[in-house]
Amino acid sequence: MPTNHIIVLDNRPEGEPTASNFKLVTAETPELIDGQVLVKHHYLSLDPYMRGRMNAGKNYAQPQPLNEVMIGGTVGEVVESKHPKFSVGQTVQCMGGWQEYGVINASLPGALKHVNSEKIAISHFLGAVGMPGVTAWYGLNNIIQAKAGKTVTVSAASGAVGSAYGALAKARGCRVVGIAGGKAKCDYVVQTLGFDACIDYKEHKDYISLSKALKEACPDGIDGHFENVGGMVLDAVMLRANDFSRIAVCGMIAGYNGEPLPMANPTLILKSRMTIEGFIVSEHMEVWPAALAELTDLVATGKLNPRETIAQGLAAAPEAFIGLLKGQNFGKQLVKLI
Amino acid sequence: MPTNHIIVLDNRPEGEPTASNFKLVTAETPELIDGQVLVKHHYLSLDPYMRGRMNAGKNYAQPQPLNEVMIGGTVGEVVESKHPKFSVGQTVQCMGGWQEYGVINASLPGALKHVNSEKIAISHFLGAVGMPGVTAWYGLNNIIQAKAGKTVTVSAASGAVGSAYGALAKARGCRVVGIAGGKAKCDYVVQTLGFDACIDYKEHKDYISLSKALKEACPDGIDGHFENVGGMVLDAVMLRANDFSRIAVCGMIAGYNGEPLPMANPTLILKSRMTIEGFIVSEHMEVWPAALAELTDLVATGKLNPRETIAQGLAAAPEAFIGLLKGQNFGKQLVKLI
Repeated sequence: MPTNHIIVLDNRPEGEPTASNFKLVTAETPELIDGQVLVKHHYLSLDPYMRGRMNAGKNYAQPQPLNEVMIGGTVGEVVESKHPKFSVGQTVQCMGGWQEYGVINASLPGALKHVNSEKIAISHFLGAVGMPGVTAWYGLNNIIQAKAGKTVTVSAASGAVGSAYGALAKARGCRVVGIAGGKAKCDYVVQTLGFDACIDYKEHKDYISLSKALKEACPDGIDGHFENVGGMVLDAVMLRANDFSRIAVCGMIAGYNGEPLPMANPTLILKSRMTIEGFIVSEHMEVWPAALAELTDLVATGKLNPRETIAQGLAAAPEAFIGLLKGQNFGKQLVKLI
Repeated sequence: MPTNHIIVLDNRPEGEPTASNFKLVTAETPELIDGQVLVKHHYLSLDPYMRGRMNAGKNYAQPQPLNEVMIGGTVGEVVESKHPKFSVGQTVQCMGGWQEYGVINASLPGALKHVNSEKIAISHFLGAVGMPGVTAWYGLNNIIQAKAGKTVTVSAASGAVGSAYGALAKARGCRVVGIAGGKAKCDYVVQTLGFDACIDYKEHKDYISLSKALKEACPDGIDGHFENVGGMVLDAVMLRANDFSRIAVCGMIAGYNGEPLPMANPTLILKSRMTIEGFIVSEHMEVWPAALAELTDLVATGKLNPRETIAQGLAAAPEAFIGLLKGQNFGKQLVKLI
């Protein structure tokens, strides 16, 4: 059996995570038992939700246990199989974790999925045609209930979720306005992703200033918003939100390190009769097939051109993850493991 | 035609309203034209929403115009009619305003309604069997989606909305816990209104302390909450809110004077996958018939015993309204005009 390299959570961060929270360990991959499949991971996905799991406190999921492999989505190939539905050489997707090889119990429903890499590069199954894409789809359809002619916004617009959101919103005939950090990302959001406008939040010192920029970019107000960040961005959007507007809360990355992140004007929820709803996409598996079908088509036809930032080798994962939390990535953050 | 006394908004408050924001004026009631009805008001309803209307800024409704009669719900009797559906002596309900007589265009749908005062005192049509009662009904049913065995909470529990909410929640088999200011109100909420528990927020210096009291009163957490107040109460409830909990935001009275009223922990919206929705009941007229039928029955059968605080005479309305905003009333605040 091949030797495996694994990154475990060694200790929990106090404030911002550092590379020393993680530890790289080596282990032999075990012999498979019936129903198991050994997967060689090609790509590991790094995602903001992982930051929440690093804390011990209340969250929507169990905390990441110490001294166990960090949770994470992967795509790769079957290198050994004791399950009749999987054979060596097939391309598969799973929650393989921060490691080079994963032993997956393929009998568990949804634990190991075949992916069709004929039309699109396999890395997209961790981004636009994976969890981030479906996240955008669910928020836009089921919470925001986007309709043609309406204006919708999204924070972290250049990221994996934001880029899928933009393509989906355009497909529905919406005006879509992004919020991102820095001119390069904003240019990409408009020129490559096809958003109608993108606002650089770094140019604004407070939410009042940011909301003035939003007013210009959204002359008819904001009907729906997808929140990945929280804090100043959400406050600014709420000031421009129309009556009966709907906000999907998917991330509050600005508050993941435990810093206070108050909402400045909750009275706007009443004044504008807003609906604000938090969600995690893994609790809505029923939408995945429809969402993935649409997202596959958008990528295959070139209507969605998701950008990727790829770190090389498992050992690079902690620094890449820390960079992601600071917004240093550009598009979907991946680690190439082969 | 009789002489009318009218309270108009003379100037807008800066911070807390004072009696000097209002002005009492005298005018003759005009001759009726076809379709109009002259109503002699018996009771005027005072409600927190009026505070919002006194401001010039963005709100869910047009600001109360200066030098015009203050908006307000009334019940009274027809004293003259030029509309075939209304005749002298009938009991009616309308948005008659802060005045002794109202001239109502009865041809407008919903402008003037007959009420049946056989089973219940007419003042209830301004409270439990009126707008406040339907407000509680809509929030509990359509937003909170209350179900038997769940725990639901409400702030300003002893008020007109809160008392109806309690009776409706008990009728649905919920555990219902109130939050109110002072021992007398809390005792009334439990002993007369039949809540399972009531917490005196005045005994708590911050939302952390209040949330500990809520934990004790809601051992299974909070599944639904109806917010009339905002600020510390909402923050405390959010800390105890269960996964997939639902919050109806009907009032943020704590912030009506323009003071900042931030939400302390909006990240809980995500962590607990909460839904928070603001509403005003006048935008949901479709529920009124069903809601009023149930509320009439609850009052007529003694299952809902709403308390009233009644100020005497139109001139007493401004001070009574200011007292309402400070929580000095006990139950539904009315002004008796005859």
